[in-house]
Amino acid sequence: MYPVIVISREYGSGGRDVGQKVAEMLDIPFYDGTIIQAVADESGYTPEYIKDKAEYTTGVNQWFTGSFFSSSYISNPQDQIFELQSRVVLECARKGPCVIVGRCADYILEKAEIETLNVFIHADIQSRKERVLSRNDDVPEHVEKYLERRDKGRKAYYRYYTDRKWGDYHNYHLNLDSGYLGIDYCAQIIVDTVKMK
Amino acid sequence: MYPVIVISREYGSGGRDVGQKVAEMLDIPFYDGTIIQAVADESGYTPEYIKDKAEYTTGVNQWFTGSFFSSSYISNPQDQIFELQSRVVLECARKGPCVIVGRCADYILEKAEIETLNVFIHADIQSRKERVLSRNDDVPEHVEKYLERRDKGRKAYYRYYTDRKWGDYHNYHLNLDSGYLGIDYCAQIIVDTVKMK
Repeated sequence: MYPVIVISREYGSGGRDVGQKVAEMLDIPFYDGTIIQAVADESGYTPEYIKDKAEYTTGVNQWFTGSFFSSSYISNPQDQIFELQSRVVLECARKGPCVIVGRCADYILEKAEIETLNVFIHADIQSRKERVLSRNDDVPEHVEKYLERRDKGRKAYYRYYTDRKWGDYHNYHLNLDSGYLGIDYCAQIIVDTVKMK
Repeated sequence: MYPVIVISREYGSGGRDVGQKVAEMLDIPFYDGTIIQAVADESGYTPEYIKDKAEYTTGVNQWFTGSFFSSSYISNPQDQIFELQSRVVLECARKGPCVIVGRCADYILEKAEIETLNVFIHADIQSRKERVLSRNDDVPEHVEKYLERRDKGRKAYYRYYTDRKWGDYHNYHLNLDSGYLGIDYCAQIIVDTVKMK
């Protein structure tokens, strides 16, 4: 049986597209919007609010005043969302092989001793800029600064909830440059890998 | 035409074996000992001395007193070996497609605008321990400490000569966990990648 495939990614690297493609090729579920919706349904927050709070930390204060694990921990909306999201991620993974993008799923599933293939997708700044601009996101004028800020948010969020370094090679079985390799070929490597195992 | 394949690796991850396998599969030269011997021949140092000085920095002082690029630079045997080694790496790469392991070749060839596929091979500590013990290297009692020290040396060396972070995903097209994927499959991914491009 295939493992759960967890894809972490730089903003604009197309990691989500890679994940979707892998799910199609292996004919297994792809969880992204589903998780956000489930968390929204249970928490009462809007999907937009979840999307923003459930993968990015903008308040650097949290990081300096401790971590999710410290004893002086006071619950806040972001922590509540993380806990709820963790439960949803676990429920998805327990249903069987699937693809989950982001959401600290690698960490959550490792703690639950669920077998995963952990993938990190990144790309050069030019490819990421082009991708973000082509999808007509609401992107501010200084695209590079924007990409940097999004990744900083993801990095801080991941560090806060997992105590690990986002993007650090130790945490991934495959770390792929989608700018060089292309989305389709990244998906092919992942599919070949789970079939090979 | 294939690019030059540059393989960086954690100590004990089997990155050298991956490189050798790739070279065999693509029927292109594999440079490792050749480079050391060429540097030895030109410099007059023994191959053992080169091997030790040409990829590891043990003197942390250097790192704190500046870098290879700083103006207060005073030549020493390690720097001389680096310069000579860089020349040999360039000569090898200019002959045509090949596999080069370590030696900051990714950086040296980028500066010379030679096309490369940059790969980083790593593995979990258990696989690395087993590999190092099985090859009967002269390994001290505390294997984990030994592995850590070797990698610290490589990291400092790479930082000193390239001003980049060794193992940082930005620097590699493929970053593969040989403990999980196995040596043969890592080689297969690399071969498929250069054939795909």
